[in-house]
Amino acid sequence: LPEHALEPIFHPRAIALVGVSSSEGAGSGGGGSSGFLASLLEQRFQEKGGLYPVNPKMSEVRGLRCYPTLLDTPDPVDHVISLIPARAVPALVDQAIQKKVRSIHFFTAGFSETGDPEMARMEQEVIGKLKAAGIRAVGPNCMGLYVPSERIAFMNGFPKEPGNVMMISQSGANAGDVVHGLGRRGVRFSKVVSFGNGIDVRAHDLFDYAAADPQTEVITAYIEGVQDGRRMFESIKAAARVKPVILLKGGLTGAGARAAHSHTGSLAGSIDIFEALCRQTGAMRAETMDDLHDLVVAVTTSVKRVRGRGVALVVGGGGFAVLSSDAIATAGLEVPPTPEETKRLLHEFIPVAGTSVNNPIDTNMGTPEVAMKTLRIVSEAPSNDVIIATPSLGQRGAPGDTTPSTEDREGRIREQITAAVETYARTQEETGTPIVALLRDRTVTPELSDVFQQEAYRAGIATYPTVARAARAISLMLRWRERRQGLPAVF
Amino acid sequence: LPEHALEPIFHPRAIALVGVSSSEGAGSGGGGSSGFLASLLEQRFQEKGGLYPVNPKMSEVRGLRCYPTLLDTPDPVDHVISLIPARAVPALVDQAIQKKVRSIHFFTAGFSETGDPEMARMEQEVIGKLKAAGIRAVGPNCMGLYVPSERIAFMNGFPKEPGNVMMISQSGANAGDVVHGLGRRGVRFSKVVSFGNGIDVRAHDLFDYAAADPQTEVITAYIEGVQDGRRMFESIKAAARVKPVILLKGGLTGAGARAAHSHTGSLAGSIDIFEALCRQTGAMRAETMDDLHDLVVAVTTSVKRVRGRGVALVVGGGGFAVLSSDAIATAGLEVPPTPEETKRLLHEFIPVAGTSVNNPIDTNMGTPEVAMKTLRIVSEAPSNDVIIATPSLGQRGAPGDTTPSTEDREGRIREQITAAVETYARTQEETGTPIVALLRDRTVTPELSDVFQQEAYRAGIATYPTVARAARAISLMLRWRERRQGLPAVF
Repeated sequence: LPEHALEPIFHPRAIALVGVSSSEGAGSGGGGSSGFLASLLEQRFQEKGGLYPVNPKMSEVRGLRCYPTLLDTPDPVDHVISLIPARAVPALVDQAIQKKVRSIHFFTAGFSETGDPEMARMEQEVIGKLKAAGIRAVGPNCMGLYVPSERIAFMNGFPKEPGNVMMISQSGANAGDVVHGLGRRGVRFSKVVSFGNGIDVRAHDLFDYAAADPQTEVITAYIEGVQDGRRMFESIKAAARVKPVILLKGGLTGAGARAAHSHTGSLAGSIDIFEALCRQTGAMRAETMDDLHDLVVAVTTSVKRVRGRGVALVVGGGGFAVLSSDAIATAGLEVPPTPEETKRLLHEFIPVAGTSVNNPIDTNMGTPEVAMKTLRIVSEAPSNDVIIATPSLGQRGAPGDTTPSTEDREGRIREQITAAVETYARTQEETGTPIVALLRDRTVTPELSDVFQQEAYRAGIATYPTVARAARAISLMLRWRERRQGLPAVF
Repeated sequence: LPEHALEPIFHPRAIALVGVSSSEGAGSGGGGSSGFLASLLEQRFQEKGGLYPVNPKMSEVRGLRCYPTLLDTPDPVDHVISLIPARAVPALVDQAIQKKVRSIHFFTAGFSETGDPEMARMEQEVIGKLKAAGIRAVGPNCMGLYVPSERIAFMNGFPKEPGNVMMISQSGANAGDVVHGLGRRGVRFSKVVSFGNGIDVRAHDLFDYAAADPQTEVITAYIEGVQDGRRMFESIKAAARVKPVILLKGGLTGAGARAAHSHTGSLAGSIDIFEALCRQTGAMRAETMDDLHDLVVAVTTSVKRVRGRGVALVVGGGGFAVLSSDAIATAGLEVPPTPEETKRLLHEFIPVAGTSVNNPIDTNMGTPEVAMKTLRIVSEAPSNDVIIATPSLGQRGAPGDTTPSTEDREGRIREQITAAVETYARTQEETGTPIVALLRDRTVTPELSDVFQQEAYRAGIATYPTVARAARAISLMLRWRERRQGLPAVF
């Protein structure tokens, strides 16, 4: 295979951070005004390749030697991260050409998106020089690259393990939200690219790359403005023939469009146009960031195998069961009444008082054995296409176990988590009915909740924060599947 | 004033827990199968009144003497919590009459909601006896009472301080979700009543009580089935004339109605009927549990003063600003462009690159002084009816502060929280424009996030988990206000 035109961007052997500041070591954590060096160090890029901070005012930063200019760094440097002000960029580009770098990521903002004609002119000059020299550019006004297999990241706290999801984003903060938010739910990434104003590398290049990339099995994107609309359409269409593609478009309302124009200088389209694009290309449309998260979870877990609208709810708490049923119906799915034979089997071990074996099955699932039995019987009922279950953790101590120490309690919950996930995974495997898990237990700490989500995900079980969101994800996926008829199956 | 007919329920001097089990000490924490004793001990009811566990098989539980029967407990006992099976209830009722108790809460389930005619007959017999003796009954099949001023609670972890919100609920678990969920956001309660199947005390009695109760300023309810429809309508109407009333109805879809029938034996109505009830009574309709939470926060903070649809967003992160603008527009609100004069004032201290002073105002608010200045100028712009702002905490260390210890970092964030809340409260007070806060910072722990929410709430500042939910709450409140024209103002 010939090297893909974008390949150098994703596999740099040495990176220079030009314009690194003394606060770079403090870490980012959020908004993204600093922290590239900290993030690369956290991923241990320096154990793999050259890492060269550049700033004439410092001789050292975080234990690394700091060089006065890019030209002073040791050979070879194939990737530059530009943290300098926009007005200093033309000089840096000249140095990069001399240094023979292959790609530059411009974190630098303040080009044409400001509306200043002088800056727009400078942007054009920079593009011309880079193109002539064959240097690819990511940005400007963006967070750049997260490639865990290459130990490259743009925020702290990104998972170190690579995965199968590629994210293409015009917003660095939104890309960060996706990595952090989905990371907590177990999802891992092949590549994440925040490409900002896209003066060189644009959405369509990245869709082409993602479609061909063997590490990428699922593609998701956050788009604001559409550059090269026709090419992007064709790239999305080609990608969606071979992999699930989940798209979120910002700026679809008047207010959002104005904000997008301020942000990336892009002109946003209408809801109708974007809806048509998704329909015609076979992509899934996420209407909100929550949708994007929930659809990525759906297509990378057993949820992708759901074939019908019948949902069995296995939950504790009658009022919760009622509101959950309403949420499922509102999402366009069904809560089919439990077949008589299934009811009979359940009543063999579930008491009548305070419970219900009608769907929703409202019963305290108790021991793993009872949970396993309940789930299996419900999974085998032909009316149920998918199960939504809420494992109950951390509530029961042994009789007389009135005040367990925090540590004992945490250990017990960890065991319960492992047992619940095993039960779910085995039942799912043996009955073929996908199971979705919801952790409702208020007494479980956020840390343990993350453990549950990640263990479940590794076992192919999707977790959702609410029944409404689980039902919506399932419903969107079923609708997408219906609309794709005639296109090749991607799972 | 004559004593309200329900008053004895809310002010018991001594409580007997009949059928208490050894696991009662272990605490509830969730689903609600046990834990009344633990919850009462947590609230320290025993320091205020008599607390008498009853179980012939035990002589002691959690350090309290356990009595063989209700008749063996010391006089007086005015409230009984029944934890025994349904079939043993008639005998308990006879004892309660002999003991001259004034009210019984039946946690006991398994009456008419099972569909068993024998149990329905027994329920009728019990009702007859209680009525004849003048004993009020809460339940059956419910969690009963949370009255923090009287140190009564039905789950662990409920706040000890009383507040101004009364919740009426046909579901104990949903009531628990409301107390825990809203408690984290700072809301406190006057009374919460989970009344289950309502064989005696019903929704309309509780609305009447809430309307008259001087401790209650806001009323919210979760309703499944409607008993005595006409009386409930009149009670809600009377209550909504004097206090904000927020209603959530479970079982409005076919699936939800079937679940409600299993849960409380009630027949649910349609969306249209419930919508009409809300319109005609002047109540606010919550469509989901999230709505209920968000509307309670709205009417108990400065959000209740919002008079128009113009929202100014003061946020960091361009992509977040774009999606937030879309969310606000989708909720039916506006993101009006920043007036020229306001832009000029902001540009005096906000740089151009990587920021925007158009609404949404996308700028890292930096120091408390800069945040204060930004907020004040934005609050004074006549186009802005409400501000949604995201405080930025925990990101900045002093230069060279590369690895702050967890403790130092937590202390710094606590100071930043207090400073941010003070800034918001002062700006809100001085400009008259309500401010809503969203904590987005991923690096802030859930504990510190709770601290922020509670401090903000005490200062009259609402917090919401997402811009979409903040916008929806504001929009629902404005719509409700429009629909109430002609009714007395409740704030």
